[in-house]
Amino acid sequence: MPAAVPSSSLKDLTSEQIMKLDLDPIWLRDTCSCKHCVDSSSGQKNFWTVDIPNDIKIKSRNIAGDGALEFTWENDLPGMPADHVTRQHPSELQEALLGPESMLSMQRKTWTASSLSLFAVDHNDYMNDPAAFREGLMALHQYGLIFVRGVPESKQAVVDVAERIGPLKSTFYGMTWDVKSVPKAKNVAYTSGHLGFHQDLLYMYDPPRLQLLHCLRSSAQGGASLFSDGFQACRDIYESDQSTFRDLCEVKTNFHYNKDGKHYLQSRPLIECKPGSGPSSNIEEAIDSIRAVNWSPPFQGPFTKHQIESTHDIKRWYKAARKFRDQSESDKNVFERMMKPGDCVIFDNQRVLHARTAFAAGDAGKERWLNGCYVDADPYWSALRKQY
Amino acid sequence: MPAAVPSSSLKDLTSEQIMKLDLDPIWLRDTCSCKHCVDSSSGQKNFWTVDIPNDIKIKSRNIAGDGALEFTWENDLPGMPADHVTRQHPSELQEALLGPESMLSMQRKTWTASSLSLFAVDHNDYMNDPAAFREGLMALHQYGLIFVRGVPESKQAVVDVAERIGPLKSTFYGMTWDVKSVPKAKNVAYTSGHLGFHQDLLYMYDPPRLQLLHCLRSSAQGGASLFSDGFQACRDIYESDQSTFRDLCEVKTNFHYNKDGKHYLQSRPLIECKPGSGPSSNIEEAIDSIRAVNWSPPFQGPFTKHQIESTHDIKRWYKAARKFRDQSESDKNVFERMMKPGDCVIFDNQRVLHARTAFAAGDAGKERWLNGCYVDADPYWSALRKQY
Repeated sequence: MPAAVPSSSLKDLTSEQIMKLDLDPIWLRDTCSCKHCVDSSSGQKNFWTVDIPNDIKIKSRNIAGDGALEFTWENDLPGMPADHVTRQHPSELQEALLGPESMLSMQRKTWTASSLSLFAVDHNDYMNDPAAFREGLMALHQYGLIFVRGVPESKQAVVDVAERIGPLKSTFYGMTWDVKSVPKAKNVAYTSGHLGFHQDLLYMYDPPRLQLLHCLRSSAQGGASLFSDGFQACRDIYESDQSTFRDLCEVKTNFHYNKDGKHYLQSRPLIECKPGSGPSSNIEEAIDSIRAVNWSPPFQGPFTKHQIESTHDIKRWYKAARKFRDQSESDKNVFERMMKPGDCVIFDNQRVLHARTAFAAGDAGKERWLNGCYVDADPYWSALRKQY
Repeated sequence: MPAAVPSSSLKDLTSEQIMKLDLDPIWLRDTCSCKHCVDSSSGQKNFWTVDIPNDIKIKSRNIAGDGALEFTWENDLPGMPADHVTRQHPSELQEALLGPESMLSMQRKTWTASSLSLFAVDHNDYMNDPAAFREGLMALHQYGLIFVRGVPESKQAVVDVAERIGPLKSTFYGMTWDVKSVPKAKNVAYTSGHLGFHQDLLYMYDPPRLQLLHCLRSSAQGGASLFSDGFQACRDIYESDQSTFRDLCEVKTNFHYNKDGKHYLQSRPLIECKPGSGPSSNIEEAIDSIRAVNWSPPFQGPFTKHQIESTHDIKRWYKAARKFRDQSESDKNVFERMMKPGDCVIFDNQRVLHARTAFAAGDAGKERWLNGCYVDADPYWSALRKQY
């Protein structure tokens, strides 16, 4: 694999140019997806990468009429037919070389209440028009928040909206759950006071990436839904003080749920970077490197002795976290929407914080009822990759 | 938090000794779980950690008759009653100081075919006797593999066995799935050839921690189940060559599933260490630092150009991975069991590799049928924590 070929230019290579690259034969052989090498019904490889002989060599190279690259082998894997040909279109080889994530390069756009370009799509279009669905997914990826309108009044409806993307996440709350304005329930979201900004299930190893809330009954005055882009709060912090941003990347806090025979627990930094990346000195790179923000004060547990001792100054974390709270709750950043029956919000639970205003006197006797469910990151990213 | 108190000795401190520690007042206030501070029905905190005033002070300390520690506050959180008392039993404070994971210190024991002390429990005991269930969970944690015997012949049975631990994992394969010896299916596990050692769903961000397979029909001659402790293969490698162990910790490979409108993808090292830990120069510490092994050749994708360039010598990975394959498949390490109807195996899918021998002529016309499902790490660890 020649270091002289920068990744960015690979996309523009012709078949002829790829053919001339000094491709590693083990690597190239590993990409083969012919009927002998990959099971056409299961999509699985029939050979083990580690079984490719060390002394395998490219015997011949050819460019077919349709531009596909064809290779034959000397010292191929045992059991392969003598006429075995590895045939790859340049785009397939480029995807293998660059990694499928290179296709998902569309930038996420952080937003404030005034800059948010809210995407709303009609239920029928979302469900039945692939182009409208694609547009919705793209907006969800960019902004972390979209609305589906005119969702039918049924408990199945939110399931159908979610499964348009992928399977529901199963948790101890069930596959779907109700958020009703009734006192005394398992979750403070079920009670009628003001509910502060938070994210759901951060005490799990893989918190839900998407949260869906379908409004079945709405209150008259209070109980409006609030959303704030956690990545925007990170941007605000970075702009005013990079060291605060770094503190939030480094110090881990604990999230726990310990009740009713369950004990869930995870430690995570408030700003969680993608694997192998950290806070850059360039703001766009720094924002781009964020995998998730983690903010769930109602489930935050105390620091352990070990965490305190391995952090140089724990008071700096408190100070930094207060800045995050202040930014995420600032009027500038908070988008408010009174959800109406038929509205279904889909938001990125590892990016967008959600909250709810307190109920008002006029809401007395009026039920607010949201039906919710979760989708994991895996099926969400799978659906996104399939749009390219 | 005085650095002079080592974590290990904290467990033995008396109430009097804890009382004399120089506890940080913000930290201590954060642990309060009285009825004002934690909602008794939801288990959630009613105050935000970041709202604890910087100038809070411990006003009084007292040891109650039952040994509980009682603290009152100067400059407490706004809205707290004047007579607010934070009351903690020493064990609660110790858990907060040491972290709940300190309770889960029981060592995992790596095993070979001859050293495995196989734990098998009767279905009725597992389901109804808390002590037997606890023993099963402990064995699962130690060895990563247990059997439940006498499981009723129904498709619901494996669900009940799994839900004794926690909610099923929902994937695009469904909540449960059949492994039958029929050709042409989505997964090579459904076909009749020899199925090599692998782990399931490594192309997901959070692969299933537990896999359950309930045997409903068994073949007569072939189709035996094989298991190999991936942590033992790591131990073998470490013992013969620490640098190979390190190579497997460092180089990431890609696992992918790209078929039928789905595109799942994850990069992981073959040996995945717990966050913040790496390969130690002490073998027991090195094995203890392993979070998971990742071995699924049928879903292994080619290295990207970036991965190859950031690895000094990719050929070293091939060599190291071959050693892992050889160790995990060695007669010494492979435990074989012909599952019979009524057997249900539960194994740690991120530790124990599984495989199946080829079917034999005598199996012709005889159906082999396993009913399977998955449980995530979160509910599994929750169940484990609740055993202490």
